[in-house]
Amino acid sequence: MKEKLKIIKIGGNVINDSEALTSFLIDFSKVNGLKILVHGGGKRATEIANDLGLQPKMVEGRRITDEANLEIVTMIYAGLLNKNIIGQLQKYRCNAIGLSGADANCIQAHKRIVIDVDYGFAGDVDAINNTAINVFLENDMIPVFCAITHDKKGQLLNTNADTIASEIAKGMSRDYEVELIYCFEKNGVLQNVNDETSVIEIINANLYKELKNNKVIAEGMLPKMENCFEALRKGVEKVIIGNPRVISDKNQKYTTLQL
Amino acid sequence: MKEKLKIIKIGGNVINDSEALTSFLIDFSKVNGLKILVHGGGKRATEIANDLGLQPKMVEGRRITDEANLEIVTMIYAGLLNKNIIGQLQKYRCNAIGLSGADANCIQAHKRIVIDVDYGFAGDVDAINNTAINVFLENDMIPVFCAITHDKKGQLLNTNADTIASEIAKGMSRDYEVELIYCFEKNGVLQNVNDETSVIEIINANLYKELKNNKVIAEGMLPKMENCFEALRKGVEKVIIGNPRVISDKNQKYTTLQL
Repeated sequence: MKEKLKIIKIGGNVINDSEALTSFLIDFSKVNGLKILVHGGGKRATEIANDLGLQPKMVEGRRITDEANLEIVTMIYAGLLNKNIIGQLQKYRCNAIGLSGADANCIQAHKRIVIDVDYGFAGDVDAINNTAINVFLENDMIPVFCAITHDKKGQLLNTNADTIASEIAKGMSRDYEVELIYCFEKNGVLQNVNDETSVIEIINANLYKELKNNKVIAEGMLPKMENCFEALRKGVEKVIIGNPRVISDKNQKYTTLQL
Repeated sequence: MKEKLKIIKIGGNVINDSEALTSFLIDFSKVNGLKILVHGGGKRATEIANDLGLQPKMVEGRRITDEANLEIVTMIYAGLLNKNIIGQLQKYRCNAIGLSGADANCIQAHKRIVIDVDYGFAGDVDAINNTAINVFLENDMIPVFCAITHDKKGQLLNTNADTIASEIAKGMSRDYEVELIYCFEKNGVLQNVNDETSVIEIINANLYKELKNNKVIAEGMLPKMENCFEALRKGVEKVIIGNPRVISDKNQKYTTLQL
C-alpha cells in the first residue's frame, strides 16, 4: 500500500493577512504525515510593482508576464514570501525547505505557446521530478513551493499556483496515495455564493455538469474545478476544496470532489 | 580518507555583470567533484531600494539592515539573484538547488548583539546543518546559498556572504576535505594594488602580520583575510583568494593562504 501524502495549496487570501498566515502555518506544522505546501502570490507583488512604477500588463482581462513583471514575481514569490514562510515554519518546528521549480529541477515547464494571446513568461508544466521531491520527503524536509518554474534552458517562468499544486499531486500519485487540498476564501463550493453554510459536500462529475449549467459554478471557480477533476482522473486519490481551517478543524465543512 | 568538497564564493563583481556571471556559471558547472556555491548581493539590491525610495541606512560608515532593507535583500538575494543563478546552472546541466539559511534549517544564526552600533537584522552564524547539506550532496544536488540566514524563531537575517562561505567551510570540514575559494575582482592578494601581476602566491600567518604592518593588506581585505585564517584554524584544508577564472584556468595565478 502506498504511503499517504497531503498537498495543500494556499492563495492570496491567506498570504495577504499576516495573522491568517501565521495561524495557517501553525496548523500546517501540526498536520501529521508527509505533506507539501504550495503558495500563491497575493497583493504584495502588485504593491511592489506599483511602488516601482510598473503597471500590471493586461490583454483581454488576462495578466501578461513581461520581463519586468517576471523579475517582480521572482523576487516576491521565491524570495520574500517563500523565505518568510520557511522562517515561520522553522519556528514552529516544521523542517520546511523553500523551492521554485528550478531548484533541483523539481518542476520543468515551457513558455506558454502563443495562440491568440502572448502571455509572456507564463509557464505550462511539463514534468514533476519525483526523484528530487522524494529525496526531501524521505529526509524529513517539508517542500514549500512558490509559483515559479523553469524551462531548463535558463528561463524562469511565472506559473499558476493552482496548476502547480495539481501537477505535483498528479506527479506524486505515482508513488503516494495523494490528497490534494485547495484552501481558498470560502468554506467550499457553495450552493448559494452568499451563504457560507450552503457548502455542497460532495460533487461528482455529473453534479459538476449540472452546477455549471445552472451557473452555480462560474467564472474563476471553473479553472479551479477543472484542475481538480483532472487531478482525480490522473490518479490523485482525494481532492478537497475548503477554507484554510479545513486542515486543523474536524468540524469545518468542505467540498469533496469525486469522479 | 575524507572526500573533497569545494566551496566557492562569488561577490558583486561577478553578480553585477551578466556576461561575467554566465561565464562563471558555465565554469562552475564544469568543476569536478562535490561543490557548493555561495553568492553575495551586488548592486541590484541598491538599485531596487533606490527605485522604492529607500535610502541605505548607514551608521559610522556601516550599513544597517532595518526592516525595509531586510525585505529588499530577502527579495533580491533569495529571490531574483538566487533563482536566476539556479535557472542558468540547470541550463548548463548542473543540478543546483537554491537555499537560504532558513531552508531545511541549513544555517542558524542570531541577530547581532548590540554593543556600540545596532546593525538591525544582521545575522551572526551559530551553526551549519551538516546533515541537511549532506542530503543534497549525496543526492547530486549542488547547494547554492544566498546570504540570508534565520534564527529559528521566525526571523530572517541579512548575513555577510564571505562569513557564510567560511562558516559552511568550517562546518563541512567535519565530513570533508574542504577547499574554500574566494573569488573577487583582483587576481589575488597583490603586493602592489595597481599591478595585477604582483600576486603574492602564498601567505602564511607570519607574512600576513608583516603585510598588515606594511599596509599592503588593509581596509576591506582585512575581514576577508581574518575569515580565511579562521577557516584554516578550524579545519579547512585549503583557502584560496583569486579572480573567478581561478576555478577553470590552470594558468590563472592566485593567493593560497597557510597557517
